[in-house]
Amino acid sequence: MALVFSDLPCTAAALFTKNRFCAAPLLLNKKHLKGRTGQAILVNSGNANAATGVQGTRDATTMAKETARLLNIHLHSSYVGSTGVIGETLPMRKIIPAIPTLVSSLSTNGNHAAAEAILTTDTFRKETAWEGWVGNNKIRIGGMAKGSGMIHPNMATMLAFLSTDVTMNPILLQEGLREAVDHSFHRITVDGDTSTNDMVLLFANGKKGREIKTKGRPYREFVSLLTTACLSLAKLLVKDAEGATKLIEIRVTGAKDPLSAKKMCFSVAQSLLVKTAFFGEDPNWGRIIAAIGNAGAKVSLDRIDLYFGGYPLVKKGNYLGKGAETLIKTYLKKKELQLHVSFHTGQDSFTVWTNDLSYDYIKINASYRT
Amino acid sequence: MALVFSDLPCTAAALFTKNRFCAAPLLLNKKHLKGRTGQAILVNSGNANAATGVQGTRDATTMAKETARLLNIHLHSSYVGSTGVIGETLPMRKIIPAIPTLVSSLSTNGNHAAAEAILTTDTFRKETAWEGWVGNNKIRIGGMAKGSGMIHPNMATMLAFLSTDVTMNPILLQEGLREAVDHSFHRITVDGDTSTNDMVLLFANGKKGREIKTKGRPYREFVSLLTTACLSLAKLLVKDAEGATKLIEIRVTGAKDPLSAKKMCFSVAQSLLVKTAFFGEDPNWGRIIAAIGNAGAKVSLDRIDLYFGGYPLVKKGNYLGKGAETLIKTYLKKKELQLHVSFHTGQDSFTVWTNDLSYDYIKINASYRT
Repeated sequence: MALVFSDLPCTAAALFTKNRFCAAPLLLNKKHLKGRTGQAILVNSGNANAATGVQGTRDATTMAKETARLLNIHLHSSYVGSTGVIGETLPMRKIIPAIPTLVSSLSTNGNHAAAEAILTTDTFRKETAWEGWVGNNKIRIGGMAKGSGMIHPNMATMLAFLSTDVTMNPILLQEGLREAVDHSFHRITVDGDTSTNDMVLLFANGKKGREIKTKGRPYREFVSLLTTACLSLAKLLVKDAEGATKLIEIRVTGAKDPLSAKKMCFSVAQSLLVKTAFFGEDPNWGRIIAAIGNAGAKVSLDRIDLYFGGYPLVKKGNYLGKGAETLIKTYLKKKELQLHVSFHTGQDSFTVWTNDLSYDYIKINASYRT
Repeated sequence: MALVFSDLPCTAAALFTKNRFCAAPLLLNKKHLKGRTGQAILVNSGNANAATGVQGTRDATTMAKETARLLNIHLHSSYVGSTGVIGETLPMRKIIPAIPTLVSSLSTNGNHAAAEAILTTDTFRKETAWEGWVGNNKIRIGGMAKGSGMIHPNMATMLAFLSTDVTMNPILLQEGLREAVDHSFHRITVDGDTSTNDMVLLFANGKKGREIKTKGRPYREFVSLLTTACLSLAKLLVKDAEGATKLIEIRVTGAKDPLSAKKMCFSVAQSLLVKTAFFGEDPNWGRIIAAIGNAGAKVSLDRIDLYFGGYPLVKKGNYLGKGAETLIKTYLKKKELQLHVSFHTGQDSFTVWTNDLSYDYIKINASYRT
């Protein structure tokens, strides 16, 4: 378990999973977010408190209440996060007595311990910290995240908690978070599954500068910094994806329109055959072409260029031969890879981060839970 | 290579991949199908003749022409199928000289050899034969298929060739094939990838009875028999899916409408986490619930029943406990499994066949090609 607490009352913004069966803690948080304030987050890992019916709602409420009571904050500023196995009720007899211990051990340098406590099948902590100018104020954004499976746009099994000292109108803060998440967490895919428990929660304590009330330059500067913070966490999630041995950036350019750019990019990033070929360090471009073709967008094969890193393998739809391939095979031994597909049919581009599909993905997911 | 030949000129019907980058042989076949006749199919495995540009089209045409010439049939009755690696041109110097040998070794009991010749990563031959009454005539349907990866609705990397002695109007034959495929090949999923080369081709030689010209009882009887033949081939494809250790039937009932039944069924069948749990023989119902939630349909968790085989694990959204689970764990050791999800919100149902995701899927696809 982990407890995040802000001395100052904060403006809160959050995004939640679009899975139809939203877990109990998220239903509670949605209610609390209506007040647009936040001061504490209590998180447990190991049990998702999802598909737990009335008892689940009761347990999430009890957790938030107990935290609010002990910290002497407003109930609506108290949030709850749960991650782990779906369908079993929380061991409340263990959770409730642990809250006072968490409260008494709160410290300004407990971030590593908290980032560690929220993990499930993750193999390392995910933390980030950024500093930048927003108008005339140097502000900070810090964050932590967890998640290594059920990861897909719309925030599959991932939790991310961010804090900042910016001062911003609550509606703009929510809007800014949505923009940042659209360009980060919504552009990663691990296994195409979206969990019942995902959320991104942002607290802004308003220590720095005057309130940002319009979508002017300071707002844009803040969103840009927030996007950077979110993207660095998002990439850490993919890097630690279950069984991943490689982080792969899939970039599509020259598409006819934004939607087809996005579709083609995700079609490649989600193809099991492409992901398995990356694991095998095989520049199997036929599978990439097939995945693009599956996206259903109107593109011409004879205009497509394919690059691995900076190395071309296909130009105008023609395979460049074994020589080009040999260079790329060496490149594919790296841990961080780029695939670039250029369509030469328009101006739109899109980028998605994904990972390879390995034996360990099967190992982890065939045995997790039991 | 394999050559299929009918003594009698046949009525032909066919369905092709919806992948944007339709391979050269399919483009040729689409042209030939306009004549609605067929008498020969030449198939090679190992090379898909896909993403091969102008040379690919030229090669496919040469194959069809050479076959037609040697068999002394009309060019438009000569079809070509290719399966294998994408993006390399065909070894025509090996293919052309092989055609006369194939022609001279044609025989009425060469079906096993042909079914063997068209395989790629398949581990066994897929053949089927059925007999049934259509009106007052006992007719026969025979078929063979290949495919074990890139399998998904809309016919991913699979070839299926069927023949029958029914006599049917060509437009009705095409319509009947579409119906049969919609209820068979379009209801299996292995890895969600759709290939550039898939097709189902049906020849009807018209030996039995008078021409069926309307959608009356004989038409329905024929479509029913054809569906049975197609479904038996489709299940063989899933059984032999790359790395598959189990054939899993996913059945959804009591859905509000046909589309949401289909969506929820495929969402479960395609979930990597669900498929990996089946490999691990783990009745991980939380993942099934999460996959249903991802389909976006309006269903209530507190009405859902889940059965593995005949064994209930969840009733009205409540987990039935370790006792129920123990029985199911034994059941999950079987090779052919059924998962039944009942929503109790409407009358619509859907069934999809899929397989588990194992270490061998990774092994086969990380090393295939190179």
